[in-house]
Parts: sequence; structure tokens; C-alpha cells
Amino acid sequence: MEQIGVGMLGYAFMGRAHTDAYKKLRYMTWPPPLLPQLIMIAGRNAEAVAGAAGRYGYEAWTTDWHRLVADPRIELFDNGGPNALHAEPTITAARNGKHVLCEKPLGRTASESYEIWRAVAATGVKHMCGFNYRFVPANRMAREMIEAGEIGEIRHFRGRYLQDWGDDPSLDTWRFHAEQAGSGALGDLGAHVVDLARFLVGEVASVASIVKAFIPGRKVDDAFEAAVAFENGAVGTIEATRLALGHKNALQWEINGSKASLAFDLERLNELQFFRSDGDRTRGFKTVLVSEADHPFWRWWWPPGHMIGWEHTFVHEIHHFLQAIAEGSEVAPYGATFEDGYRAAEVCDAILRSSQCRVREDISYRALVEPTG
Amino acid sequence: MEQIGVGMLGYAFMGRAHTDAYKKLRYMTWPPPLLPQLIMIAGRNAEAVAGAAGRYGYEAWTTDWHRLVADPRIELFDNGGPNALHAEPTITAARNGKHVLCEKPLGRTASESYEIWRAVAATGVKHMCGFNYRFVPANRMAREMIEAGEIGEIRHFRGRYLQDWGDDPSLDTWRFHAEQAGSGALGDLGAHVVDLARFLVGEVASVASIVKAFIPGRKVDDAFEAAVAFENGAVGTIEATRLALGHKNALQWEINGSKASLAFDLERLNELQFFRSDGDRTRGFKTVLVSEADHPFWRWWWPPGHMIGWEHTFVHEIHHFLQAIAEGSEVAPYGATFEDGYRAAEVCDAILRSSQCRVREDISYRALVEPTG
Amino acid sequence: MEQIGVGMLGYAFMGRAHTDAYKKLRYMTWPPPLLPQLIMIAGRNAEAVAGAAGRYGYEAWTTDWHRLVADPRIELFDNGGPNALHAEPTITAARNGKHVLCEKPLGRTASESYEIWRAVAATGVKHMCGFNYRFVPANRMAREMIEAGEIGEIRHFRGRYLQDWGDDPSLDTWRFHAEQAGSGALGDLGAHVVDLARFLVGEVASVASIVKAFIPGRKVDDAFEAAVAFENGAVGTIEATRLALGHKNALQWEINGSKASLAFDLERLNELQFFRSDGDRTRGFKTVLVSEADHPFWRWWWPPGHMIGWEHTFVHEIHHFLQAIAEGSEVAPYGATFEDGYRAAEVCDAILRSSQCRVREDISYRALVEPTG
Amino acid sequence: MEQIGVGMLGYAFMGRAHTDAYKKLRYMTWPPPLLPQLIMIAGRNAEAVAGAAGRYGYEAWTTDWHRLVADPRIELFDNGGPNALHAEPTITAARNGKHVLCEKPLGRTASESYEIWRAVAATGVKHMCGFNYRFVPANRMAREMIEAGEIGEIRHFRGRYLQDWGDDPSLDTWRFHAEQAGSGALGDLGAHVVDLARFLVGEVASVASIVKAFIPGRKVDDAFEAAVAFENGAVGTIEATRLALGHKNALQWEINGSKASLAFDLERLNELQFFRSDGDRTRGFKTVLVSEADHPFWRWWWPPGHMIGWEHTFVHEIHHFLQAIAEGSEVAPYGATFEDGYRAAEVCDAILRSSQCRVREDISYRALVEPTG
Repeated sequence: MEQIGVGMLGYAFMGRAHTDAYKKLRYMTWPPPLLPQLIMIAGRNAEAVAGAAGRYGYEAWTTDWHRLVADPRIELFDNGGPNALHAEPTITAARNGKHVLCEKPLGRTASESYEIWRAVAATGVKHMCGFNYRFVPANRMAREMIEAGEIGEIRHFRGRYLQDWGDDPSLDTWRFHAEQAGSGALGDLGAHVVDLARFLVGEVASVASIVKAFIPGRKVDDAFEAAVAFENGAVGTIEATRLALGHKNALQWEINGSKASLAFDLERLNELQFFRSDGDRTRGFKTVLVSEADHPFWRWWWPPGHMIGWEHTFVHEIHHFLQAIAEGSEVAPYGATFEDGYRAAEVCDAILRSSQCRVREDISYRALVEPTG
Repeated sequence: MEQIGVGMLGYAFMGRAHTDAYKKLRYMTWPPPLLPQLIMIAGRNAEAVAGAAGRYGYEAWTTDWHRLVADPRIELFDNGGPNALHAEPTITAARNGKHVLCEKPLGRTASESYEIWRAVAATGVKHMCGFNYRFVPANRMAREMIEAGEIGEIRHFRGRYLQDWGDDPSLDTWRFHAEQAGSGALGDLGAHVVDLARFLVGEVASVASIVKAFIPGRKVDDAFEAAVAFENGAVGTIEATRLALGHKNALQWEINGSKASLAFDLERLNELQFFRSDGDRTRGFKTVLVSEADHPFWRWWWPPGHMIGWEHTFVHEIHHFLQAIAEGSEVAPYGATFEDGYRAAEVCDAILRSSQCRVREDISYRALVEPTG
Repeated sequence: MEQIGVGMLGYAFMGRAHTDAYKKLRYMTWPPPLLPQLIMIAGRNAEAVAGAAGRYGYEAWTTDWHRLVADPRIELFDNGGPNALHAEPTITAARNGKHVLCEKPLGRTASESYEIWRAVAATGVKHMCGFNYRFVPANRMAREMIEAGEIGEIRHFRGRYLQDWGDDPSLDTWRFHAEQAGSGALGDLGAHVVDLARFLVGEVASVASIVKAFIPGRKVDDAFEAAVAFENGAVGTIEATRLALGHKNALQWEINGSKASLAFDLERLNELQFFRSDGDRTRGFKTVLVSEADHPFWRWWWPPGHMIGWEHTFVHEIHHFLQAIAEGSEVAPYGATFEDGYRAAEVCDAILRSSQCRVREDISYRALVEPTG
Repeated sequence: MEQIGVGMLGYAFMGRAHTDAYKKLRYMTWPPPLLPQLIMIAGRNAEAVAGAAGRYGYEAWTTDWHRLVADPRIELFDNGGPNALHAEPTITAARNGKHVLCEKPLGRTASESYEIWRAVAATGVKHMCGFNYRFVPANRMAREMIEAGEIGEIRHFRGRYLQDWGDDPSLDTWRFHAEQAGSGALGDLGAHVVDLARFLVGEVASVASIVKAFIPGRKVDDAFEAAVAFENGAVGTIEATRLALGHKNALQWEINGSKASLAFDLERLNELQFFRSDGDRTRGFKTVLVSEADHPFWRWWWPPGHMIGWEHTFVHEIHHFLQAIAEGSEVAPYGATFEDGYRAAEVCDAILRSSQCRVREDISYRALVEPTG
């Protein structure tokens, strides 16, 4: 079986989740498209990164990401570092011919995101932005049902990402520093909602929003609320907050179409709510246990009814990326490319502008400039 | 026991629901503050109104509401007619010294609502606007918990009213005619969400909205989406639609505060969801069966766990109004006055303006002009 | 419209609930089969019964039920008294030519129940046993689906009635005295489960049970647990308890058939859970809002999605009985006759015997002895 | 770090799940008590077992389990084979000085289970029976709450395991052959319910049951229903079926105590339902997201709200066993020993006998015979 050398930037939350996926898909998604070899891991704290390397089985570690993106054994660069470290290492790795997987948000602004996309697209490598919730089985199933016309014309999207860890003025992480994170709940949580809105409904045309910081002294937003219109005529809301007590990881959405409705909550990630308007006397939302369904992600796991967890989204995501690399197939539309990363950032930027200017913002998306001559 | 003569305008949906309440509170809310006597009912269709009068036990009926509001036996005028018939009969009745209960929305516009309020307030009668969902036990309990400080400082309100009967282009009712209804889902459903937002959270300061008609040829809105900011600093969303398949009567809201969260769904009207951040290992939302609680509305009904239904909100509402009349107590804050009816209309108008002008609208509320000298 | 004179024994819980129904169906279930006239109410406490008569509008009251069952104006005798007062007044009333509605359990034992049935059946009047949960819309809909073959061959019935008010050793009501109540949770709660088991699945063939009193000094059972086999081959469990903390009125059942499954919880009485094995990818239990369905009980009430409450079961039940009286139609199978009351009592008695003797009890049902020439 | 050589019998469902756990705990439960080395895997089909060995990284494979249990590099024998292959390989391995982990049910009968326990206990190795559902975080948390007295005196246990794959007469697996499986739903599913009943409530004293085969020609039971009494006075029901349409893996239980109630459903394995009788106005069952809680299993995984799946129970289970081996600590009470495997089998056997003899069976448990002199 063909192998692929992997270099990882980051050993904390995302570095750990991605590494787990590389290890697990080596034997669970059999045969994997490519067999990942864990070559090197990079991070700022030498002791911590060395410990992670030992534990996860990376052959080497470094505190200098330049070494990593230059290493010829590495064919896939996985960037799980903080947002401020997305652009330069990712672009450098791509220019060195490595396929690149970068965590979301792609850049800290639409402009930075566009530059990352532009620079990487020019190299011809495969690129994927880590919108892992596309790889929750329920979300993929929803996308397939929408594509198949089972929901009809979409009228409403109601999406929100609710967490509650942000309610402590003494907390400090890079996620609260604008220069590190770009934005607060918007880029961290809102970007996921925006990506799912685009994945499931289509392109966002305009937003009218209110962005809010509740905690005194906090430099980034704690929450935002937006009314949105889609290019296809659907309207809805997009929200995110780190101050919704009682919700730990409630990425929730509902879609109402002319034929059916769908709804999802990440805190019950094995379930999809489905209502179909079929004239039967037994109308009602079904709680579809996704593991029961004939589902492209399910063949790897357990018999029906045996739940999977959050970390499995990364197995699905990276499997998809390895397949694109191995077969030369497209990352889109089921995976998010850097173009998707950029487009989500345009929506996020428009949400910030709309709140500042108090006007409903139309969103226009830049294309790649074709080289002339 | 003292009696009160009741005159009813309207024999259809609201006329029927209110009449049921007048009859039921005569023996269930014992002793009622006043014993309602059903004097006269008015409606446009002679045969239908005569039938209703016989069935419900009104002593007389008429097709001319002027007769009804002039009848000296009538001390309480209950206006359950279409929106276009709210202003004139209500004002006339008040000027004739009758207490007035008017269905929501109070007027078709903020301006008309203000005029109704102004004219009626000048007469000194008691007035109440039919925002019956304040009288769902769960909503009243939520209000009491918020007043008692149990939720803390409110950060978010997420309210929506989802129905699905509007998805038929051939449908026609007065609810689809702008001159009759004022607006569509906005005044019909949205006004309820706005009133609950005001009841539970406080005054709305600004809205950024998108109003939408989906069905070709429909003259009123089918749906709207709004980001809202409250005077007390909370932010959130308010939405309503008649095109959310699978939802028959889903008036849903969630409130997140600095100490606790609350949530409600009218389709499970006996339940209140409650999360308290109390440091216990067993964190989670509780499904509070409201009928179990020591609740001001519950003494009338059945033992704990014996559910009540939608119609009971009218029993509570009218009981509250009779009490205000009998005791000279205030309708506010637990009941909605015509001032509340007017203020909800200001928010609804701002939602329309914001969508038209594409700007976030600040809302200012008019006070009654004090008569001089 | 034809009228029917009603005499009521009992002014407490059941007397109140039934009276509410007589009043409500006079105008809500229009036109009612017969127009109930509230003639007389009987009870032991003169002051209390006089108060109830005034409040509810009974023309007269008495502390002597013999007067009531002898009154020629009364054509329907409704027995909402304690269990020990079921037999004699009911039989006397029937012998006086009055139709009889008797609360459950019919008698305190199978033997007493049989005698009531036998004596009343001999008179030729209409008789109905107050198993009101047959008249929850969800339960009726389940019955209709089963009759129509939509569930297939039934394999399992899992029924239980969970309450939690019994956990106070100082409590005392007639419900804790064996001579008054017959049994404890068994006759009070378990009888409802048994009746629904018979209504939905069919006749119970045998039971293997454990009956239990937890509270020291209590003379009746607090709970029972039974494994049951039905004549049609289904197997399952029947349980009831007054000591299940957190459950106020949880009459719950689930049925698994060869084609579909159904489930119900009285604490969400507007909902029916439905799973159909139809090969669709979207398998799952549906939460059917019964008010949405084309349902024989729904025409009386409100638009879809407007919930009804517990008390409405009595409106449906008594409407059904009035219809049987007016039209000469059968009370069975949708209503419970005294034969159903007797058969439920046979099952309850077998549950007691099985626990005492530690053997699985087969149940045989007595028929009425035909009078010989 | 100290290592431990692992030999695995079985490469199908359980072999796969256990192997995944050995691999995952090497880096996720850091530092693991011992570092598992995958030495050898055994199975009947040479091609399949060779494939599994390659995929999972076992150093060797064999079709002869005798070779495996004799291999001196193997210190831990993990028996994931069919029930008929539990006794001999497990006993042989133990006699060869290997610690043994055997899937449930331990033996096909209580007698065989006792023999396995007796023989293995005599060797002095550590032994554990694979009741993995003790290692669902919610179940462990329930046990800890009960131990801490938070639930009070337990009155009721209501446990059931519902699946629906058995409804196909043409299906054939070793699970339908009595000599291979011992029993049907009873040993396969019921044993898990029995073990959780013992884990959470205490020893079962007697059972009154009905065992049933629905599918013509099937040699083992499809379902059973049992009323049970516990030594501590609690009563309840235990059920399992493979014919409950709509339930894929619904291992559900509820416990009612004198202070609180708890409930669980494996299809929502990250949640525990909790009701506490604390006099607060906001009474109700809480949906506790177990991942939020301070929980002994949670330190390995992700931040609060990031769900885990079914397979994680094996990581917890094997971690616990490795800890017992490494530290010489006891497997009981949080893990199931072979004594627990035997005792569960006694209850299962009593369920069979009770159904056959139609009497309530008292259960007595054998102790190990102490060697004399």
C-alpha cells in the first residue's frame, strides 16, 4: 500500500485530534487511500512537542516549523496551529510541493484567506480547509438529501453555535487576542455555521448583523447575531456565542424546504431530525439514527446503533483528503477547499462590517485572477 | 357574586376561544373575580353569529357592532374581530365606558396602535391586549424567575414562531390582505415573539431585519428574520414564518443569562427547560413539568402532571383582566396593556423599515401626551 | 335538541372532571348527541356538595345518593365516588332505568366487578367504565392503526404507570385503605395500563408478577411488576408505582409489531411516537403531533398544533357515551363497557394471586350466564 | 514504560473492537498503565485472520488458539471468540499464567460459567468479564452517585435491551444456535441488563419470567420478560428482545430511589437523565451531558461537549484491566470479574427456569469452594 509522509504543526487540541485520525484510519478505514506515516510534529514548546511526538509516534519533532515544511519526506502538511500561524507555513509548504490541510478559519480576515487560497492554488497541490463538521454523518446525509431534491426549494436556514466557556473574565487564551485569532466567537464558532450554511443551502448573498462583546476588557467578540439572505432566495439566521449557559458544543441548524425539513444538533451527533410532507396521517419529525442508514461513512465503523463520537469527523475528513490526493479527485464539494475557507471568511467579514456600519451588507466573492499571456 | 356583562365581537377562532374561557372560568377559577354574563355577540354573517350565540349562550346577537358597543348591559367589550376592526369598535366601546380587551396585533401599524392606546387611555377604562402567551404557565414562571434574579443578567434571547400552513398559493383569508391584516407572519406570529421578548427580556432597542414573501402573488410577508439588540444589552434573534414544514405552532424561545438559561416550545406547553450553573456535577437542562410547580395558575386545574392545553391561556388571561377590573389593580406587568400592544407594533414596524431600508433601525417609543391645562 | 338529565355521585377529583366535560361538550362538540342537564349532585359533606352544586350549576344536591338514583329526571347516573361506592349505587341506578357511567376500577375485586356487570347488563341500560385514557387522541389513533394492520402482528407491549406522590408515610386517603380502594397502585394506576393493554393488544392470557408495599404500615400495594403473555402471542411487561420520583403522571406504553412500533407518554399526551419499517434511508421514530392528524376527536378543538389537555379525555369519553345512548350504538370497542371493567379486574386479581402464590397465573374470564327459560 | 504482550482470539466484531482499544489507549490514555504489544491473533479462517493481523499490526497470527495461549510472549489473553469457545481457551491461558479478559456471557450456562471462574480463580491471574457497558461514562457516574447515597434507597429498576435485527427467518449466525450461543436474546442482550442491574442496584433475589421465540424454527429465544426482586428490596423488570422495530441498540434502564431517579439509553450514550427531589420549584429530569461532568473517564478525551462513541467503552474497560494488572489492584467493583460473569449467568439461568416451570425462581449463588487442608 502506498504511503504518505505527514508533517503536523500543533500538538494541542487540533494537533491531537488530527493525529488520532491519522492513526485510526490506518486500520479502521481499510484499505485507506494512502497509509499515513507520521514524520514530524512542530510546536513552540520543546518539551511539550517532544512529549507529543513520543506519545503519538512521530519520527521527529521541531520547534521550528520551517524545518518541517522543508522536509522532503513530508508530502502532506497539516496545519493545526493558531490562526496567526495559518498563512505563512501553509503557503510555504504548498510552494514546497506539499499537499496542505489547514484548520479553520483559513485566515484571520477575508483578505488573508484570499491570499492563502491564491498562493496555494497557484502551486497545484491539493488543499483542504478543516471544516470537519461537513464530515459528521448527519450533515453529509443532509447534503445528499438536499442534492437529491428531497427537501425541495429551501426557504429557511436557522444555524447557531452555542458554547458557554467564555463567561470568565479571567480566562486568557490566544482565542481572545485579535491579532492571534482574528475574531472571537465569529471566526471560532461562527465560521463553522457559515460553512454549513454554504454546504447545505448555498452562497450567502447578504447579512444584517449585530456583533457583541459582553465581558469587559475582552478584545474580541463574544457573540454575534445575523439575519441572512441566500442567493437562492432562502432567508434565515446565523448566530454564535460563547456565553450560552448550558450548551457545551451546540452546533445546531434547521432547514425548511418546500418538501421537507431537516435539523441537527452536534450534541446528538448520531441523529438527524427529518420531517417530510407526505400526506400521511403520521406527520412528524423523525429522529433518524444516522448509524442505521446506508451511509458512505458508516462502512468503517460498527453495526447499526453503535454510536460514534466527535473525533470520527476527523477520520472522515482526512480519509476524504487522502482519497483526493491518491486518486487526483476533487476535494470539493464534500470537503471544503481553500476557496471555501476564503468564502466563509468573506461572510464573516461582512458580519463584522454590517454590525459596524449598521447596514445590510451584500457579499461579493473574489475569483482567482487567471494569469494572462 | 358580582357579575359583569360581556359583549363579544367575532365568533370565529378568537371569539370561540375567548367565549370558552368566559364559560370555564365561571366554575373552574372559583371564585372568579367577577361572574361573566354573556350578553351579546356580533359578527358579519347573521346565520353564523346567531348559531354561535345559541351554542355559547349569548343572550343576543347582532350583525352591527355599533349596537353591541352601545348596549348598556355590556361592561366589558372583547374584540376578537379581524385586525381592521380593532380600532373603531374598541375606541367606541371605551368611550362608552366599557372595559376593553382587544386581540393582537392591537392595530395594523404602530401609528394605528398608538391611536387606539391614546384614545382608550383617555377614557380611563381598563384595557388589555390579547397577548395570551404571557399566560402560558411556563412563560409566567420564566418571567417570575427572571424578576427574582435567578437567571442573572440576560445575554441572549432567541425567539421564533414557526408554522407551516402558508405554503399553498391558492389559500386566501383576510390574513393575506394587507389592508385587513396590516402584515403577514410579522403581525400574526411575530408580534407574539416580540411581546414575549419584551415581557421576558425588556425593551427592544434596535433591529436589523430581512422580511420575505415566498409565495408568488402574496401581498403580505410569509416570514421575517431579525437580529435584535435590547436596551439592557442583550442581543438575539426574532423570527417568524408560515413556511416551516413540520412545525404547526412552534412558538419557541431561549434565554441565556449570566446565571441560568431557560427555553420553551409552545408545542410542549406544559414544559419549561431550565439550566442553572450551580457547580453541581449533574449539569444539564431540566425538563420542568410546569404543572408540578407551585404556580399561580395551577390552583385552578388538576393535580400535578395532569396537562392543560392551549385554550387555558385564555382562561388565565381573562381571569387576570377581570381581577384588574374588580379590584382596580393594574393589568401590567403580567398582562399586556394597550401600551404593550403599541410598543410591540413599534418593533414590528421597525422590522419592516429595516428590511426596506437595509439599515439597522433604532426604535423609539412614544409616550402619551399629557393633556395641558 | 334532545336533553338528558345527569346525576353525579362525587364532587371531588372525578366529579369535578366529569362535570367540566358535561358543561364543555354542550357547546364545543357541537351539536352534542344529547344536551346534558345537570340535575343533581351527591356527596357526603353537605357544605362541600352544596358548594359544588352552586359552582357547577347542578339544580339540586344531596348527601344521600339513594335520592339521586331514584330521581326520575335523571337519565344518566355518573359514579365518580370512591371504589367502595361503585357497586350499590350503580346497580340501583341501572335498575331504576338510568344509563350508568362508573369510574374505574369497576369494583374492588374481579368478583365485585363481575357482579356489577351482571346486574347492570340484566337491566338493558347502557354502561360504560371510566377508562378515560382510551380517549386520549394518541391512544385512539394507535388503536385505529393497529386495527388497520399498520403495526402488523404485535410482539411486545411494555406498559407502566409511574407516579411519585406515594412516598410520604404520613399521607392518608381512602386510596390507602384496602376496604375502600380494593388495592393500591394496582387498581388505581395498574388498571389503566391493563385496560390499554387490552384495548391495544388484546386479551391477557397469563401474568407472572411481584407486588410490593414499600411504606411501613401501608395496607395496600405501592407498586407491582408483571411479565405478561397475551392470547395472540405477544409478551411484555405491565407495571405501576406511586414511588417513581420525577414522574407525576407517566402512563407510558410501547408496542412493537412486525411492521411498526408505537409509543406514548401521558405527560406528552398530544404526541404519539411511531416507527415504520419501510426501507427508507430515513428510519427513525417520528414524533407525531396528534393534533395535526385527521382524527375523530380533533374536529371539536382548535387548529393543528393547538394542544389539548388531560381533561379533554372526559369530553371525548362522555361524548362517546351520549352518542351510544342517543343512537343506540355500542359503547364497545372504543369505549370500555362494564365487561371491560370486569376483565381488567380479572387481570388485576391475577397479578395479586401470582405474587402471593409465586406462580404464573393463567387468566380465565367469566361470561354472563344466560337466563334459562 | 512497561509493556504487556497481548494475544487475541477472534478478529470479528469483538476482536476488532478490543484491538481498536489496545491501539488507542497506547496514546490517548497517557500514560497507560502498561503499553500493550499486539503479539498474536487467532481465528478459524486463515485468510481473514492473516488480513486482520496485517491491518491491526499483530506480529503473528494463527488458526490454532492452542498456539496462542501457549506463547510465552503473551501475558494477557483476550477472548473475543464465540460463546462456545470461552471456556477451554480461557482456562488454558490462565493455567499458563496469562491474565484473561473474556467476552460476555462468560459461559453458555451458569454451570459452565462457574467452572470457568473456579478454574481461573485457582490460578491467581487477573480475570475480567467483558461487560463493557459498566464503562459507559454515564453508567459509571450513576454507580458513583448511588454509592455516594445520592439516590437513596432504591425502589425500582426498569432495564431492557431492545434491538430489531432478529426479525428475518432466513438469518443464520452462531448466535441462533443453542450449542454455540447458549441462549438467544437472553445471553446476548439480557446478560448486559442483568450485569447493569447488579452493578447499579445489587444482587437479584428472584425472577418471574416469560421467555419467547417468535420466529418459526429458531432454536433460541428471541425475547424475554421478567419481573425481578432484588435482595435489598427493590423490584423491577428486566427485558430483552431482538424484535423491537425501531430500536437498534437501546440498552435502557431507569432507577427510582427514595431521593432521586436516574435513567439511561445507550442510543444517547453521552447523556444521563437525573431527577432529584430537592424541593425546588424547578423540578424535572435533567439531561446531564456526561462529558461536562468531572468524570474519571473524561480526562482522556476532548473538551466538554465533544461526544464520544460506543467503542470508547472498550478503551475504558481495558485501561481498567491493565491498571489492575500493573498495580495489583482489584478488578471489582467497577470492572466485572469472572464471579460477576458467573452471577449474571445464574440470573439468566433462573429466567429460563422460571419461564419453563411457571414459578418465581429464587436465585442462590455458589461461592468458590475453599481448598481444604
